Amino acid sequence: MNYEAFFAAELSKLKDDGRYRIFAELERKAGAFPAAEQFVAEGTRPVTVWCSNDYLGMGQHPKVLDAMHDTLDRCGAGAGGTRNISGTTHSHVVLEAELADLHGKEAALLFTSGYVSNWAALGTLGARIPGCVILSDALNHASMIEGIRHSRAEVHKFTHNSPEDLDRRLSQLDPERPKLVAFESVYSMDGDIAPIAEILDVCEAHGAMSYLDEVHGVGLYGPRGGGVAEREGLMDRVTVIEGTLGKAFGVMGGYIASSAALCDFIRSFASGFIFTTALPPALAAGAAASIRHLKSSHVERARHRDRVAQVRRRLDALGIPTIDNPSHIIPIMVGDAHKCKRISDWLLEHHGIYVQPINYPTVPVGTERLRLTPSPVHTDGDIDRLVTALSEIWSQCELARRALAA
Amino acid sequence: MNYEAFFAAELSKLKDDGRYRIFAELERKAGAFPAAEQFVAEGTRPVTVWCSNDYLGMGQHPKVLDAMHDTLDRCGAGAGGTRNISGTTHSHVVLEAELADLHGKEAALLFTSGYVSNWAALGTLGARIPGCVILSDALNHASMIEGIRHSRAEVHKFTHNSPEDLDRRLSQLDPERPKLVAFESVYSMDGDIAPIAEILDVCEAHGAMSYLDEVHGVGLYGPRGGGVAEREGLMDRVTVIEGTLGKAFGVMGGYIASSAALCDFIRSFASGFIFTTALPPALAAGAAASIRHLKSSHVERARHRDRVAQVRRRLDALGIPTIDNPSHIIPIMVGDAHKCKRISDWLLEHHGIYVQPINYPTVPVGTERLRLTPSPVHTDGDIDRLVTALSEIWSQCELARRALAA
Repeated sequence: MNYEAFFAAELSKLKDDGRYRIFAELERKAGAFPAAEQFVAEGTRPVTVWCSNDYLGMGQHPKVLDAMHDTLDRCGAGAGGTRNISGTTHSHVVLEAELADLHGKEAALLFTSGYVSNWAALGTLGARIPGCVILSDALNHASMIEGIRHSRAEVHKFTHNSPEDLDRRLSQLDPERPKLVAFESVYSMDGDIAPIAEILDVCEAHGAMSYLDEVHGVGLYGPRGGGVAEREGLMDRVTVIEGTLGKAFGVMGGYIASSAALCDFIRSFASGFIFTTALPPALAAGAAASIRHLKSSHVERARHRDRVAQVRRRLDALGIPTIDNPSHIIPIMVGDAHKCKRISDWLLEHHGIYVQPINYPTVPVGTERLRLTPSPVHTDGDIDRLVTALSEIWSQCELARRALAA
Repeated sequence: MNYEAFFAAELSKLKDDGRYRIFAELERKAGAFPAAEQFVAEGTRPVTVWCSNDYLGMGQHPKVLDAMHDTLDRCGAGAGGTRNISGTTHSHVVLEAELADLHGKEAALLFTSGYVSNWAALGTLGARIPGCVILSDALNHASMIEGIRHSRAEVHKFTHNSPEDLDRRLSQLDPERPKLVAFESVYSMDGDIAPIAEILDVCEAHGAMSYLDEVHGVGLYGPRGGGVAEREGLMDRVTVIEGTLGKAFGVMGGYIASSAALCDFIRSFASGFIFTTALPPALAAGAAASIRHLKSSHVERARHRDRVAQVRRRLDALGIPTIDNPSHIIPIMVGDAHKCKRISDWLLEHHGIYVQPINYPTVPVGTERLRLTPSPVHTDGDIDRLVTALSEIWSQCELARRALAA
């Protein structure tokens, strides 16, 4: 077999479908984010980032950077080993305590990423609990799907955000079998929010464990940034809360928070936890500083809500078609991969506005979109420029607008 | 089902088997490594780390730390997105070029960890190449095994480090089928080194791709730290070289280096690459500085060899039973989980020497060991103290010694 020809042919297909991804090469400007430089053939050009998951700009917060500098100076760069073999540092232990406290749980367990935390935790629970059945929301993230698939447990998809369908499916299962319901609070691409209380009611009625991915919720929702489940007073009813340190907290890494026994079980059996180098202590320290800050500071969350509402209002006024949702994510629907990419390129070239086109496999074919993530650090001027540019390209390309309210 | 009782019971079994892991809580001392502080109930106590995979002490190298501080100041903490959605920074692009150059390959692709690079690359190649068969060395690392398992490709294990068995197994397969041979250069727990040239001969005779995990080789072997394959002049014959930034390079992250088409293929299809936040730019910059330094500096590698040889000579002279191997890893065989843990605890409590006991599932039951990793930053005094303490506990516990040469 000619392997190179095979790879080239597969890549050609992607290009033909408009799904071949070209990464924008950026340099974020700490202290000036969402400003960044984009590296292009001729050098660099200034851009405003409108699609980052550094939702609150915490990646440039002085407390976070100070904690990271300080820990780098004291402890060096890497952890130097797996958690078991010399890689557990004081910073990891402190961070796990901070996370357990954030979610009101007995314990928390760190992973190298949110992806790995979902993959390893779901993979281990599904594989290690004899006879376990997993009920998985139809729109769960790739990391959850891969973890569940890896576990080889019996899995049933339930209709997205439907407690009724979940209830129906759980009713059909042997009441004695162990069950795990996996779902998210905020779905990243549509920005919709799960009916968490209703799903938990169903879980409890059927004796199922609940596993809630809050990666797009932590830091952003709840009085201490514990996520949507905290806002709704539901954290104590969730068996496992999974989160990330790489989005609103601005650093990198993932975690679960749960009972001491469950965390210890995952710690003891999850291949993806055991056999990997621990996070650098400086990242752990930076994340802990970020979490601590957002537990008591509300200004970032308040201004975040304000920015999101303002962008949404302005787009609505122009009839730019977005998905209505109650979260901080504003998806502008384009519905075609080629067109989406052209709009994104034009915004970048003509206005220095960077919104990556989102295409398959991240979203279904035909629902390609621009996903905006306004943040507290976007100014009124940034918003003006964004909205004006979008209106211009919408007119130029004769893209559909929504009917405006009278 | 009572989930909590189930988790507790599983943990009890581990404790009964002596396999329950207690992580030592450390704080590495940048500039003084292998010195560290251990956090214990009463406060902290000074220890010397003898089991780190920061093999060359690069985690405290001024060039690495300077690059990280500088990038933190310029770019902030996290990447703020997946590689596709605002998370590709100039530091990532520079690092990938540095890695491609290190291995003499057209391209390289970064992952969040070595574990993820193996899991995602093998998982994607195995799943996406129609009819692909994977030949896997019997002692491959968990991350490779999980990636291969995840791919659901047909897999055949071949006898560890046996080109003959590999040849026999490949001969039985349809010559037209795509094939991938996955193996490591340095096996971490025994420290033995693969007969790379002979394995590549077999791969080439059967038209198989080769996938070589060099995580315990990069930085340490070869004139520029390209690994064992570089030392043996074989890099151009290996299809995919996989490595880590978290061991000899002292930071965190993993990568593959290969043809441009293969890297682009993995970049475009691997879930574990696509759906995860990119490495923080400061980590990428630190790793690039480390790689660059080790491409031209030989003192670390020379002193590393010297330290390893000295520890080995001293242990041999005392008859402390080690596995003979040609690498930098010195496994001291104990063969019992409880005993291994007791020795490790005693070394820590009485001599401030930290060598984590290695037990199942990292090594087979009955081959429990202390795994020493001497580094260029261990002094003669450190070695004296280690050898004296080991000799003392060997006498105290009446542990077996090897017959000494006359």
